[in-house]
Amino acid sequence: MNKSLSERLLDGDRFALSKILSEVDNATQFGEQTSDELYSHTGGAWIIGITGSPGSGKSTLVNSLALCLSEQGKKIAILAVDPSSPFSGGSILGDRVRMRDLYGKPNIFIRSVSSRGHLGGISSSTFRLARIFDAAGFDTILIETVGIGQNEIEVSKLAHTTIVVEAPGFGDEIQAIKAGILEIADILVVNKSDLPGSDATVSALVGMIDLGYPSKEEQITPWIPPIIKVSSSKGEGISELITLMDAHRDYMREHGLDREIETRAAIGEIGDEVERWVWEKYLNPKTNSELAALIAQIGKRELSPQAAARQLIGKLKL
Amino acid sequence: MNKSLSERLLDGDRFALSKILSEVDNATQFGEQTSDELYSHTGGAWIIGITGSPGSGKSTLVNSLALCLSEQGKKIAILAVDPSSPFSGGSILGDRVRMRDLYGKPNIFIRSVSSRGHLGGISSSTFRLARIFDAAGFDTILIETVGIGQNEIEVSKLAHTTIVVEAPGFGDEIQAIKAGILEIADILVVNKSDLPGSDATVSALVGMIDLGYPSKEEQITPWIPPIIKVSSSKGEGISELITLMDAHRDYMREHGLDREIETRAAIGEIGDEVERWVWEKYLNPKTNSELAALIAQIGKRELSPQAAARQLIGKLKL
Repeated sequence: MNKSLSERLLDGDRFALSKILSEVDNATQFGEQTSDELYSHTGGAWIIGITGSPGSGKSTLVNSLALCLSEQGKKIAILAVDPSSPFSGGSILGDRVRMRDLYGKPNIFIRSVSSRGHLGGISSSTFRLARIFDAAGFDTILIETVGIGQNEIEVSKLAHTTIVVEAPGFGDEIQAIKAGILEIADILVVNKSDLPGSDATVSALVGMIDLGYPSKEEQITPWIPPIIKVSSSKGEGISELITLMDAHRDYMREHGLDREIETRAAIGEIGDEVERWVWEKYLNPKTNSELAALIAQIGKRELSPQAAARQLIGKLKL
Repeated sequence: MNKSLSERLLDGDRFALSKILSEVDNATQFGEQTSDELYSHTGGAWIIGITGSPGSGKSTLVNSLALCLSEQGKKIAILAVDPSSPFSGGSILGDRVRMRDLYGKPNIFIRSVSSRGHLGGISSSTFRLARIFDAAGFDTILIETVGIGQNEIEVSKLAHTTIVVEAPGFGDEIQAIKAGILEIADILVVNKSDLPGSDATVSALVGMIDLGYPSKEEQITPWIPPIIKVSSSKGEGISELITLMDAHRDYMREHGLDREIETRAAIGEIGDEVERWVWEKYLNPKTNSELAALIAQIGKRELSPQAAARQLIGKLKL
């Protein structure tokens, strides 16, 4: 008897994996069914989000990490979130370089996913594709996303460990963005450490960490994001980074925080689906005659949008 | 008999305006009531969104525009969206410069509003505050927002006219962002036209406009975003810009597109309220026991988040 695609995926068949990833990414019915079927096989992978400004050398870092981890005998998946939106940053070139470096490595699987979806950040596809890799027995899933706007926040909701990559020499305005990064970074990498200015960048980050994590008594010892200098192109600092990643994983598991992340991710994912449904089915004046009537009243200045919203919410039965 | 605050606002009392703006911004009950009351007085103002990268000189441009319009006898409100998020870009200094330039002008009113709100962009407060200015008889409302991520998209949903400000000399990566700007720009300003490179920036934008608007037969003549060079610091190009703004307003009114924008904005605003309610009340496992039970099943790998979402959506009665 022929094995199903799911069974072949569980046996490690790369073709089956590839086919299922496409079906899931395209949200076909087969993809949804397979996704549901395979869910019971998930939970083994450690998901690592890697984000940073364009030009910080994320892709090279991800490649170096993947190579180093695969040499340790691990199975590595790379999910590269390609913004279909304007914020591209030269992904085509990056992919070509990547293909050359990682071509033919049996323990590394690369998949691009576009960041379509109204939330602007990483799409719900990313969540689902990560689970397929998880079911397929990959030990580590590296999700690479361009850190502009919401992307970096989104990836931190899904990832067990979030790595924020900086490079020396950005202007003050870009530096200012970093203030928000403290909230999501588990590890801060100053990449391109061979460039001038990397020590200044480290100092700036140390200062922000000190401000962001004042010493105080907490119930559990807080994880203070370590800062590490790396030169991906020279291969320096990669194994030290992997040691930090392992330490963070141990910390998370010790305090049960990995399960917390997973619960939060699941709520977020359910929420996105519910939200999409509400917008498509309910907030559409073509299908919701009540909304259409309210819009007409608003147009005549008889009712404010706020008052209309209160009327609609008052009738919601969830 | 004492006049109410709303009546005093309608009479042009700046103190009453200021007080009501605060109440609306803080979403007090009084603010909500007043907002509803004043809604019937809205519809007269033209709302102009002004967005652009940090460093493009938006604030100076907005100041010059406000001064020039007020000299024409118009009442001008400036709503400066201050990101409370990391993407600040020196707003404090900007505000101080602004205060000095515009201090004591009776026809100009400035108000900062923070971009709080989970959508990352301009907050629903911005919509409500704009309406208060509208009711108070302001002719033009200039909404200034930092063009990173979603903000520029958000402001274009509310504004009748969206102006995108660029400055010469940004790197290629930032330039790439512009591809998405075509979708929202009604007028493109190349600011700091006295700097070298401004002609190259104009050429790049012309090229993108040509690609984005291929000649084809349409039902109505499309509005092709004009590109204008301005030096706000030298005051050059401002009155030409105002002429373009007037032309765009006439175009929008002629084709009834201003009312379309308002309808879309109202749906967006209602949607944001409904969405917030759904997240707070429905997607909270502490108050929704059904969700909590589904989350427990997900944790045991018995049910995928997608399948859980489908179950919840199946039970929604909207």
